[in-house]
Amino acid sequence: MSHYLQHLEHVKGRFDHALQGSDFDAVLIAAGQPAVAFLDDNAYPYRVNPLFKYWLPITASPKSFIYYRSGEKPRLFLYQARDFWHSTPKLPPGEWQEGFDVTLIDNVETVVQALGKQVSNTAFLGEVHAPIDSWGLAALNPESMIHSIHFHRAIKTEWELQNMRKANVLAARGHNAARDAFYAGKSELEIHAAYLAAMKCRETETPYNSIIALNQNGAILHYDVYDADAPAEHRSFLIDAGAYYNGYCADITRSYAAKDGFYGDLVAAVDAAELAIIKKVKPGVSYYDLHVEMHRMIAQILADFGFFKVNAETIFERGYTRPFFPHGLGHYIGLQVHDVGGYLKSDDGTSYERDATHPFLRLRRELEAGQVFTIEPGIYVIDQLLEEFDGNEDFNWQRIAELRPYGGVRIEDSVVVTADGYENITRDAFASLS
Amino acid sequence: MSHYLQHLEHVKGRFDHALQGSDFDAVLIAAGQPAVAFLDDNAYPYRVNPLFKYWLPITASPKSFIYYRSGEKPRLFLYQARDFWHSTPKLPPGEWQEGFDVTLIDNVETVVQALGKQVSNTAFLGEVHAPIDSWGLAALNPESMIHSIHFHRAIKTEWELQNMRKANVLAARGHNAARDAFYAGKSELEIHAAYLAAMKCRETETPYNSIIALNQNGAILHYDVYDADAPAEHRSFLIDAGAYYNGYCADITRSYAAKDGFYGDLVAAVDAAELAIIKKVKPGVSYYDLHVEMHRMIAQILADFGFFKVNAETIFERGYTRPFFPHGLGHYIGLQVHDVGGYLKSDDGTSYERDATHPFLRLRRELEAGQVFTIEPGIYVIDQLLEEFDGNEDFNWQRIAELRPYGGVRIEDSVVVTADGYENITRDAFASLS
Ligand SMILES: [Mn+2]
Ligand SMILES: [Mn+2]
Ligand SMILES: [Mn+2]
Ligand SMILES: [Mn+2]
Ligand code: NI
Ligand code: NI
Repeated sequence: MSHYLQHLEHVKGRFDHALQGSDFDAVLIAAGQPAVAFLDDNAYPYRVNPLFKYWLPITASPKSFIYYRSGEKPRLFLYQARDFWHSTPKLPPGEWQEGFDVTLIDNVETVVQALGKQVSNTAFLGEVHAPIDSWGLAALNPESMIHSIHFHRAIKTEWELQNMRKANVLAARGHNAARDAFYAGKSELEIHAAYLAAMKCRETETPYNSIIALNQNGAILHYDVYDADAPAEHRSFLIDAGAYYNGYCADITRSYAAKDGFYGDLVAAVDAAELAIIKKVKPGVSYYDLHVEMHRMIAQILADFGFFKVNAETIFERGYTRPFFPHGLGHYIGLQVHDVGGYLKSDDGTSYERDATHPFLRLRRELEAGQVFTIEPGIYVIDQLLEEFDGNEDFNWQRIAELRPYGGVRIEDSVVVTADGYENITRDAFASLS
Repeated sequence: MSHYLQHLEHVKGRFDHALQGSDFDAVLIAAGQPAVAFLDDNAYPYRVNPLFKYWLPITASPKSFIYYRSGEKPRLFLYQARDFWHSTPKLPPGEWQEGFDVTLIDNVETVVQALGKQVSNTAFLGEVHAPIDSWGLAALNPESMIHSIHFHRAIKTEWELQNMRKANVLAARGHNAARDAFYAGKSELEIHAAYLAAMKCRETETPYNSIIALNQNGAILHYDVYDADAPAEHRSFLIDAGAYYNGYCADITRSYAAKDGFYGDLVAAVDAAELAIIKKVKPGVSYYDLHVEMHRMIAQILADFGFFKVNAETIFERGYTRPFFPHGLGHYIGLQVHDVGGYLKSDDGTSYERDATHPFLRLRRELEAGQVFTIEPGIYVIDQLLEEFDGNEDFNWQRIAELRPYGGVRIEDSVVVTADGYENITRDAFASLS
């Protein structure tokens, strides 16, 4: 059986499991439809419901639906507008067709008519809007089902891993082009365009707003404006940009120094620390512990580079790493960039508590084979966070001032947990291109 | 007084007028905020509420609010996140600052606290979501106010016209680059990138999905996918793409022939017809009549080019122009691409009926000085619409088959109605660049 068809069996199994623990016989999953702007006729870009694309690699067919009843072949109601305004979407090719009974529809009411009485035993998963809210479905987005699916989605099938590997190759191609554009002295906006051109895609086809930050902009963690003018001097470049493949995400960050020296050395140190923490990835390890361990490593780097007058141990103990590395070590990744379930303890929805010390950590679970997550340490000069340490003599403020014009450093890879270790699908992707 | 401050006085007047006819003392207008994708933490691109940017050229400050009470200086509650994740938006420069009392907020609850008891006499205009729906506002999007504002928005102020002229210059720059990319043999995706690069903006900063259609794709009216591979042969190019300037829209279509000959002659004929109908623009004319007149002109072109075995009069009488020119002649344009109020007869909301013969016409009102609308005739080979005429001997099917590989032709300009005629701000924009 092909990897996709194995994946489909797995997904059915996950839904069988979720349905068994529920009051419902079947599930109806909407692909969703683009939202329209307020008092306007212009739509936002379309994003498919992740629970829909979990079943099959159809990501551009709004108003479509999947109906699944345990033990039966899943039904796909594939929407294709029969009007002269739009290009007729072609039936996306692929072996998914073997797994589904396909009905073409041009009116969503066809779905509820096809379900007939079964609708009252069917749970709905998707964005709720008219006319779905009047279809008489048994439940709209029942939490128990969503928790169950979300919990188990953390373990990826081989087909999912293949898609993520390919998404990483695609994104790595964009990253290489962006790096070249940086060294050619381009503006942020031009680098953004170079990234898209290398991937042969458009902005609305990327999974998230790329961060394309030159110089001090690298310290703005969600920097998502692009200056159209190149700065007078190119000192540093931080790019956090991804790609989709069959609906699966890549999420990669790289940092580059314009010249050898201080900042370039810091990039190398963060890169080495990132690879060192990845070496610890294997089943049974706690992601939380890796996050804390990374703070120790960041403390060492901060000490080594002279940002403090106290030693690494003291930097760590006094919490001085936090203003420099304020975000979490990473997050699950898959159908969503920030994939779901990072705080779920079990499929009944029991969750980990948020931790006051590390409020932005997105992943608390213990590592198991088949999980995929990012590892993305960083060091930045963020004045707003340094304010509370104003006047603190443990800090070498002069050294910190030297880093400020460079913004910061982040290195981010995606890592698969294997039976006895890990697979770094981002490094492999870059290696495949060189 | 500057054009902007005159505009602001005008807007106040329009809201005074709408408030007078209402049960409310004041109005609160939300800029809106980006919607978040289903079960995700990723937001859609942000689009400001048109009724917000009507007041001032701030289009990138979600969660901001304007409060206006007749006779008082309007208040702007400008949201600026005070967190380390985002770049702090700078107070957008400009003379709008003279017109408003500005309060910086980083929590939207500050707004309702500032309004105090007045909230119960205040109408709200904007997208409704938590916590706004629990603020105790007198009304959420009262239709009577919206009708009044929408009706009167059809007449643009000089400041609005300036912005639209500049949006046209910006878009014309993009169009010229796109044309050059077409003649250089680029793919649709590459032409799309060339368009954005020339405007120095990104895809999410354009007012609508550009239509970038090579060859037969020009016949798909809402064609919004871009082929990443160039076709074997470049025959024709239809581009419908716009720009924003201070929140005001341009919406321009051009068609280009790769070589002289049949299709190029057809482009020239549609272009001439478009200019001819624009010459009829002046106050008192009915837009509906222009639309019907355009069908007569299209009939003449269809006859001249040999698409029929019957004459222009017969083509028109028998409705044969409709499959070739199925959309409306145009629409209002301004803060929105398809600007509002095209069917309003008065500011109380009385509307024109939809016309069964011309169901897609978006503008029914009589022309008045200060209105701005597009004029966008086209001729396409749309098989789905020609089906009903299958076997009709009046049609020269062989000639129609010759056009099919070229898709179609559309020419679209934006036109301002002046006291005694018109101003074609799109042609002027192109002329200013040459
Ligand atoms: Mn990430
Ligand atoms: Mn990232
Ligand atoms: Mn238009
Ligand atoms: Mn247009
Ligand atoms: Ni379970
Ligand atoms: Ni009035």
